[in-house]
Amino acid sequence: MKFGHFDDARKEYVITRPDTPYPWINYLGNEDFFSLISNTSGGYCFYKDARMLRLTRYRYNNVPTDAGGRYFYINDGGTVWNPGWAPAKTQLDFYECRHGLGYSIFNAGKDGLQAIQTSFVPIGANCEVHRLTIKNTAVATKDFQVFSFVEFCLWNAYDDMTNFQRNFNIGEVEISGSAIYHKSEYRERRNHYAVFGVNAPIDGFDMDRESFLGLYNGFDRPDAVFSGKARNSVASGWAPVGSHCIHVTLAPGEEKSLIFVLGYCENPEDQKWESPNVINKAPAQKLLSAFATDAQVDAALDRLQAYWDGLLSNYHLESKDEKLNRMVNIWNQYQCMVTFNMSRSASYFESGIGRGMGFRDSAQDLLGFVHLIPSRARTRILDISATQMADGSAYHQYQPLTKRGNLEVGSGFNDDSLWLIFGVAAYIKETGDWSILQEQVPFENVEATAVSLLEHLKRSFDHVLNHLGPHKLPLIGRADWNDCLNLNCFSETPGESFQTCANFESGIAESVFIAGLFVAIGPAYAEIFRRSGFAEEAKRALREVRNMTAAILKDGWDGEWFLRAYDAFGDKIGSRECGEGKLFIEPQGFCVMAGVGVDTGLAESALDSVHKYLDTQYGIVLNWPSYTSYQLNLGEISSYPPGYKENGGIFCHNNPWISIAETVIGRGDQAFSVYRKTCPAYTEEISEIHRTEPYVYAQMIAGCDATRHGEAKNSWLTGTAAWSFYNVSQFILGIRPQFDGLEIDPCIPAAFGSFTVERRFRGSTYVIEVENPSGRQKGVRSITLDGTPVAGNILPVCGDGQRHAVHVCMG
Amino acid sequence: MKFGHFDDARKEYVITRPDTPYPWINYLGNEDFFSLISNTSGGYCFYKDARMLRLTRYRYNNVPTDAGGRYFYINDGGTVWNPGWAPAKTQLDFYECRHGLGYSIFNAGKDGLQAIQTSFVPIGANCEVHRLTIKNTAVATKDFQVFSFVEFCLWNAYDDMTNFQRNFNIGEVEISGSAIYHKSEYRERRNHYAVFGVNAPIDGFDMDRESFLGLYNGFDRPDAVFSGKARNSVASGWAPVGSHCIHVTLAPGEEKSLIFVLGYCENPEDQKWESPNVINKAPAQKLLSAFATDAQVDAALDRLQAYWDGLLSNYHLESKDEKLNRMVNIWNQYQCMVTFNMSRSASYFESGIGRGMGFRDSAQDLLGFVHLIPSRARTRILDISATQMADGSAYHQYQPLTKRGNLEVGSGFNDDSLWLIFGVAAYIKETGDWSILQEQVPFENVEATAVSLLEHLKRSFDHVLNHLGPHKLPLIGRADWNDCLNLNCFSETPGESFQTCANFESGIAESVFIAGLFVAIGPAYAEIFRRSGFAEEAKRALREVRNMTAAILKDGWDGEWFLRAYDAFGDKIGSRECGEGKLFIEPQGFCVMAGVGVDTGLAESALDSVHKYLDTQYGIVLNWPSYTSYQLNLGEISSYPPGYKENGGIFCHNNPWISIAETVIGRGDQAFSVYRKTCPAYTEEISEIHRTEPYVYAQMIAGCDATRHGEAKNSWLTGTAAWSFYNVSQFILGIRPQFDGLEIDPCIPAAFGSFTVERRFRGSTYVIEVENPSGRQKGVRSITLDGTPVAGNILPVCGDGQRHAVHVCMG
Repeated sequence: MKFGHFDDARKEYVITRPDTPYPWINYLGNEDFFSLISNTSGGYCFYKDARMLRLTRYRYNNVPTDAGGRYFYINDGGTVWNPGWAPAKTQLDFYECRHGLGYSIFNAGKDGLQAIQTSFVPIGANCEVHRLTIKNTAVATKDFQVFSFVEFCLWNAYDDMTNFQRNFNIGEVEISGSAIYHKSEYRERRNHYAVFGVNAPIDGFDMDRESFLGLYNGFDRPDAVFSGKARNSVASGWAPVGSHCIHVTLAPGEEKSLIFVLGYCENPEDQKWESPNVINKAPAQKLLSAFATDAQVDAALDRLQAYWDGLLSNYHLESKDEKLNRMVNIWNQYQCMVTFNMSRSASYFESGIGRGMGFRDSAQDLLGFVHLIPSRARTRILDISATQMADGSAYHQYQPLTKRGNLEVGSGFNDDSLWLIFGVAAYIKETGDWSILQEQVPFENVEATAVSLLEHLKRSFDHVLNHLGPHKLPLIGRADWNDCLNLNCFSETPGESFQTCANFESGIAESVFIAGLFVAIGPAYAEIFRRSGFAEEAKRALREVRNMTAAILKDGWDGEWFLRAYDAFGDKIGSRECGEGKLFIEPQGFCVMAGVGVDTGLAESALDSVHKYLDTQYGIVLNWPSYTSYQLNLGEISSYPPGYKENGGIFCHNNPWISIAETVIGRGDQAFSVYRKTCPAYTEEISEIHRTEPYVYAQMIAGCDATRHGEAKNSWLTGTAAWSFYNVSQFILGIRPQFDGLEIDPCIPAAFGSFTVERRFRGSTYVIEVENPSGRQKGVRSITLDGTPVAGNILPVCGDGQRHAVHVCMG
Repeated sequence: MKFGHFDDARKEYVITRPDTPYPWINYLGNEDFFSLISNTSGGYCFYKDARMLRLTRYRYNNVPTDAGGRYFYINDGGTVWNPGWAPAKTQLDFYECRHGLGYSIFNAGKDGLQAIQTSFVPIGANCEVHRLTIKNTAVATKDFQVFSFVEFCLWNAYDDMTNFQRNFNIGEVEISGSAIYHKSEYRERRNHYAVFGVNAPIDGFDMDRESFLGLYNGFDRPDAVFSGKARNSVASGWAPVGSHCIHVTLAPGEEKSLIFVLGYCENPEDQKWESPNVINKAPAQKLLSAFATDAQVDAALDRLQAYWDGLLSNYHLESKDEKLNRMVNIWNQYQCMVTFNMSRSASYFESGIGRGMGFRDSAQDLLGFVHLIPSRARTRILDISATQMADGSAYHQYQPLTKRGNLEVGSGFNDDSLWLIFGVAAYIKETGDWSILQEQVPFENVEATAVSLLEHLKRSFDHVLNHLGPHKLPLIGRADWNDCLNLNCFSETPGESFQTCANFESGIAESVFIAGLFVAIGPAYAEIFRRSGFAEEAKRALREVRNMTAAILKDGWDGEWFLRAYDAFGDKIGSRECGEGKLFIEPQGFCVMAGVGVDTGLAESALDSVHKYLDTQYGIVLNWPSYTSYQLNLGEISSYPPGYKENGGIFCHNNPWISIAETVIGRGDQAFSVYRKTCPAYTEEISEIHRTEPYVYAQMIAGCDATRHGEAKNSWLTGTAAWSFYNVSQFILGIRPQFDGLEIDPCIPAAFGSFTVERRFRGSTYVIEVENPSGRQKGVRSITLDGTPVAGNILPVCGDGQRHAVHVCMG
């Protein structure tokens, strides 16, 4: 069942009924100011950090689920409705929500009034703009009221939802003209406030929540709106809100637009006040004046569209599969931008207060982002490597505002460091910018300790080698990529973190997954050092890669698949010998990606086992069989009910690993089949089962052991976005940046047909037409560049800013 | 304006309309299981710890404000209503909520049906019982449905409201017969679950919130209820709830009761399971069977009433002032029990996750509790003293489950230790139990460090003497009683704690308040040591008290009042020399209580200044003038808008200090006037201004500089309860335990008239009739005990378990 449709021409998803199976959201903002906005205009916004500088209040897991947002109420002769349907939920004559790239448009109507709410965060501005255009489509004059509404958060979102004995006393506001100012704590240590203005005279206002809503009313029944009368309330403590009341009269056919701006403003410490207790409003006035006319708003929307058109032109596919096209060209890349911006901090499943940026997450997110804005990827690489420790380990998380490592979580996740190499290699391959390796980067943000990024990579590589176990496989530490496989942290205390509880460092628990990751990234590491003039280090690295490969083949192979790990007692995890958890997805993906066993058929056997035991109609589950009871020696993985999350769930993040692995052994049909199962556009028709947005990936889909098999959760903020784009763009479609140029190596279904990828790479644009006349799944027979045959399958770096025609023939 | 009335005979407050100015709540439970329940049946419950073991979910500061509770919906032919009015808010034919001692009764009716919901936590049981008695008062047969509803919390209340990427996957339930079981995380490390049962066959159930409510509905419009059909849903992740559906048919005049029990159950680790994935329900079945009949419920209610009747008979007043009687006899003592149980953890203003038990709070709370259950006071004293440090300082807070000090907050609050002496002295005076002093108590909970409690008192006393400043006054540290006067913690970072940020330990900032507290408690300290055989220590203590008194008189007097403090630069706080904050309440109260300046008229001058500058119609403000801007050298006090909290608010906690001080100088009219202003029963008629419950104290009432002057906040959990009872019982009515007996020393208004106090003291009951024929405010002319004259004004300890008639004549 569908709840809308894609509009590829406008790069929008169009939701045609408001009661989606779960709130379907969009993100506004790409720089410092961010908003989450649902298909009923719910959500919130923040400046830079979702925990520390949240502008508007949002209550997660509320009843109704998505309560609170920026609401515009229309009271038309006693009938109250919202262009976003919620919160009034009045039956509308028509409703549509278009989620576009950085904007959302709500188009609804009732009783001869049409309201179009266009919401976006302009490029370069720290605000949300909401333009409300109302048209009288009736035959008689319409006389009605518009009430705006936002509820302010007292900045620190955690404190805001816990510390009421203080917070109910500190709320302060001001109003000047049509602009409402939220200035709580500005009197003390804050130098920022929020402004909520509108480009029209107002007939009333409210700044105190209770006065506007009534103590016993929900957002669906505000007293002020239903009585048609603003209270002109001034908050003094309790809950400051912003609401404008505007009377509008429209002749038949007439329309009027109102532009609401909700923004964040700062003042220098010595210019905070205009007069005692009156804030300096200059920055707010400047902000409001920038979006005061329809022409200004239209121009800002045009800039936003141009911005996205520019970004997305770096990789553009034309194939016969329109679902594939829209995911590759629009939504997957869009989601990669969002994951880069948000890490795992703020979504409808991440509350924005619990987690910092992940070292591992951020490194992997680069895979899907580096081609969009390489300069920001570069900054991110330097940020995360500065949280590394001198021994090569890393803070598992860091705080986005301070960029300091999170002491509470600490380090001990033994795969972390290798992802830095992965990310740096991807960056250099995309950009050819070898200078990044010479950047001086500190350890643990202590400037005096700075060494070159190249040295950081060496410490990263060596950290694994310095932590090998009895089988010469890498020790797992607190956890590897699978945060929930905790082989050294035996937790018996309810509620305790499975990762940060006592780690007894067995010196025994080993990860075959990390071994595969090491072998996979080792050659790139060696190549980076070889080209940097360290031939010996490159040789040593390749030697270690061979040793690790040998260790995997000796003690990491279980007969039909790769083992997952050895536990703290030296017992196998992910073996046919195990009662539960016989087979895990991770080492199958990464060992094959690394090329282990490809020549001997083990790789094929491993992937066949995945297909046989782990595959379901909705994707590949993480492990089989799911654990049915808690295992002290395994940790969090066994804490989940079977079929959910890391315990037999379809953890989408590593489904692309299998897909890539399939391309390694040349099985294009299988690779695409795996890709397609978790790809949201292909699940659009089963939205009532899938539930989350059909335009973005979710972290997890319930596995076959779960009651709700097929139901997705944790949409938007997941490494799945980056890995899926990495997979489809570089391995399935096979347009793959390498150190020396753009490798062309598709691995597609036999019946896929020809396709064209337009790829901007190091300043030039390659228009790559791929033909596959004999229906091969892999293999390139010939390539021409601007008509000239290319030897091998790597396009050289043209570096001339021009367009180049590339013709590829598979065969 | 009133929203109800007191029913003194039943010891209840009767709320007669549901839309009170703020939710008016009650507490159920006195031992391990606690519930908060509002006048519309909102709220939640927990076992032992409001953060760690919360049974039901509650969202603070929600819209509507009080959303979520234990709800009973009646669907009577399509009309849906609740006995508590909310959440359906259907207009009722009648409504009444009676908050009693440990129970609440909702009595409402609609269209010929009457429903009485009786909610309580039985003595000795870990559950809430809700008996719903429904009667058909119409002339025709009624056929309707009852739906119960609770929403389970996933135990850890903090995690429950932040960690959704995990939590939406872990919800698990079971149902067996009419009992619903919430067993999330029971599969892993928890050995406890919740049960929600009813003593009748059910016609359907729901255990998944969305199935019951619908994703887009509030609690006011559950799909299942309005459609008249339970979904029989089984939660798998998301939000587990419990709802029973029962069809009821009643003939005219017929009534039926349904008994719902919501409880907490534990199993031994080796008896968790009945069979794989099926929990051991034995403890739940035992619990449910204990409250399965009306007779059982009636008996439990009788036990509860007997329990409270017994406790309250320890102090019972009969005077001409019925408001005074009801506060002294019922509500103030009741609130003291609640503050003892809750400290500052869980109210409608304290979210139950933010704060542990306060060292200082708990010590002061004893003042109003020790006469109720001395044995529990004894345990509390030993608990808090075990969080003391070897140098006499103390962890400012500790966690109730572990009883360990809170490392994040640490120590450095230099008054803390003296409150331990205060509490211990009160305990010994009440009980005569000198053995407590010999209890071996560790420092920082490290058993090996244990010394006698007596030694703890010495370290406490010496900690002050070891931390004196330039004027030989006590150094204030991070803060003294006023947590918001932070003279050594200069905070410039928004959101940072004003108390725990860098403390540069000026060695200069001094507190005249701590000096007063030291002088006030010093004589009791000396007496404790003298009687314990340490005459020299007693003498030394009295010498130090004299020295401190001299220091106050020399450098702590400002001309018309006592100074508040010296800041880190040696500048005065609370002086006529200051531009703002010229006068503070705390030192006036405590220095006079300590007797400083009583003989020279300074005390009278100080209290006159309080009356002149700080008094308002709603109570005495903390300081004058309020600070109008943030002062780096003062800290949090100046962070509040003027008139709120510690910045010019009526901080009720220290109003009794002034009242007691007035009794010290014999001004009974003034003492009572101060008492009366903040006493909730006297504000009942202005409930629309006061807003919080007219039966309990609030921490703060907005001061005269605030927009909302007279509006109370932070009701229930405040030291005001203990101090007010201490004041009225021991100083105004003047029935005061001393080491050797019961001192009789009333200080009352001239027109107060005669009164009788029945006081149980060390096993005997003294029926004390006080007459005041000449209208004196203070002074006892004669006392007889069982007809025999008593020399002096201290009744001896009879210790015979008998009743004794005491006749007191003032004059």
